[in-house]
Amino acid sequence: MKLASFRSSIESEIRLGIIVDDVIIDMESWGIEHDLDLPSTMLEFIDLGPAAVKAVSETLKNIDARSLVATSIPLSSAIITAPIPAPRKNIFGIGLNYTEHVAESARTLDTSKELPQQCVIFSKPPTTVIGPGDSIKHNDQVTKQMDWEGELAVIMGKKATHVSKENALDYVFGYTIINDISARDCRRSGQWIVSKGQDTFAPMGPYVITTDELTDPHNLQIITKVNGVEKQNGNTKFMLFNVNDIIEDISEVISLEAGDIIATGTPAGVGAGREPQEFMWPGDVVEITIDKLGTLKNYIVKA
Amino acid sequence: MKLASFRSSIESEIRLGIIVDDVIIDMESWGIEHDLDLPSTMLEFIDLGPAAVKAVSETLKNIDARSLVATSIPLSSAIITAPIPAPRKNIFGIGLNYTEHVAESARTLDTSKELPQQCVIFSKPPTTVIGPGDSIKHNDQVTKQMDWEGELAVIMGKKATHVSKENALDYVFGYTIINDISARDCRRSGQWIVSKGQDTFAPMGPYVITTDELTDPHNLQIITKVNGVEKQNGNTKFMLFNVNDIIEDISEVISLEAGDIIATGTPAGVGAGREPQEFMWPGDVVEITIDKLGTLKNYIVKA
Repeated sequence: MKLASFRSSIESEIRLGIIVDDVIIDMESWGIEHDLDLPSTMLEFIDLGPAAVKAVSETLKNIDARSLVATSIPLSSAIITAPIPAPRKNIFGIGLNYTEHVAESARTLDTSKELPQQCVIFSKPPTTVIGPGDSIKHNDQVTKQMDWEGELAVIMGKKATHVSKENALDYVFGYTIINDISARDCRRSGQWIVSKGQDTFAPMGPYVITTDELTDPHNLQIITKVNGVEKQNGNTKFMLFNVNDIIEDISEVISLEAGDIIATGTPAGVGAGREPQEFMWPGDVVEITIDKLGTLKNYIVKA
Repeated sequence: MKLASFRSSIESEIRLGIIVDDVIIDMESWGIEHDLDLPSTMLEFIDLGPAAVKAVSETLKNIDARSLVATSIPLSSAIITAPIPAPRKNIFGIGLNYTEHVAESARTLDTSKELPQQCVIFSKPPTTVIGPGDSIKHNDQVTKQMDWEGELAVIMGKKATHVSKENALDYVFGYTIINDISARDCRRSGQWIVSKGQDTFAPMGPYVITTDELTDPHNLQIITKVNGVEKQNGNTKFMLFNVNDIIEDISEVISLEAGDIIATGTPAGVGAGREPQEFMWPGDVVEITIDKLGTLKNYIVKA
């Protein structure tokens, strides 16, 4: 199932949509037409639980979207927002999760050149979240080193405590793209939250592909371009800790809950790791493309 | 105003109460009796905004609680929970915010002996929160260094973006106690979230004193006892960055919102800084007392 949160016009509330071909179907309205009590937001849908999500997905497989005039609009006229515009807690981030990125970070930042033995975890507050096409705010009094990090994001589908890696994907709702914007000069005593947690520093979207459609998250190409020039070209198969490992590892000590978001780390090619270093400035455009998940494009503007 | 979140019995829902003398008044029920539309939870009350909070406080000043039989119960029979049992985002924590604690940390942990030039910020997920009397879960497969950190917690009263320190306290709703439980052996590549973010690692409460009653948060004694023995004895007047500084500093880069919680850092005397080092184990009892805010007592149990 391909989902998005969207507004039908600039003034409209944010609603949950199902994308079929080139239309977006309002899930709640579609449910009413089919005598199904379906929710109007992504978080409410996630809260129904994996069985309900699967049932909706099955029902949808035989739908011809073009026939659903009453409950759909052309995808091209929808305003796509972040999949979860207001997460219920900070986004979990995984640092140093690709070998070459560990190396480039050790060369130019303050991290170790040794590969981590366990996931390196940090967080980004809900106030970081923006959607596709939104502006990333650059405050040049605060940073002169705004960097990109294209990443696969995992959205949890149910509560996970002490989950083993073998079963971990059963707890996932779906996947989307996240840009883990990082102000390299804002680390403080080693803590990353100011570097990665500033307002607008987590563009997300455009789509969520649920696990019935994206069964293997470990062979997805990730490409990041800045002003049209390719900067990162990696693949999730090279994660040091894959999605199963990450869920096992976090859930051993921190319960994960439905709707939680995990940014799984970025491959090599960040601006800080280049020679000479490159950072983003107002006027720049950053785009991340991940197989099956589309392209997330955002603009840097002066704060 | 002295507030608490409470259950009237073990099965009851959590409700917002006002404490007057030795009774706790159910705010929503009291409002109904006085033709006031008042909320049933702490977060809803905070969301009304500072003007409404002040108005309720003024109205209450002339109440004789003992006359309010219908809407109050004896404080001794209420089950006090965490003031905000389910925060809307991670708790913000401030590290290394008292001179002597910077010194003890540098001696025994991996932090710098230099005083920080800006607040050192980290986070604790909402799943860390427990209430007074609740159990802190000790998993000896995960940590053998569970430590205490008695701290003043600030609860924000409205959205704060780019707030100057002069006006910062206008954005505060009130204050409570937090125990920033820290597993010293769970830091990862310098990040503290696993050390400080495990389930049950943020006991909070018992009371919230609003800013009309606690106007100066910078002269409060903080005492932490483990099994009845005093371990920390500090005062908020010795914070390196006081509450005004912290709000200015965070809100410059990360918008604070109504209901956000900030743990303001711990004074010297943590277990990791003692010679020999001392940590907590199942069976131990930890109590934090802060002037005007009462005592927060919790028990360590085997996970």
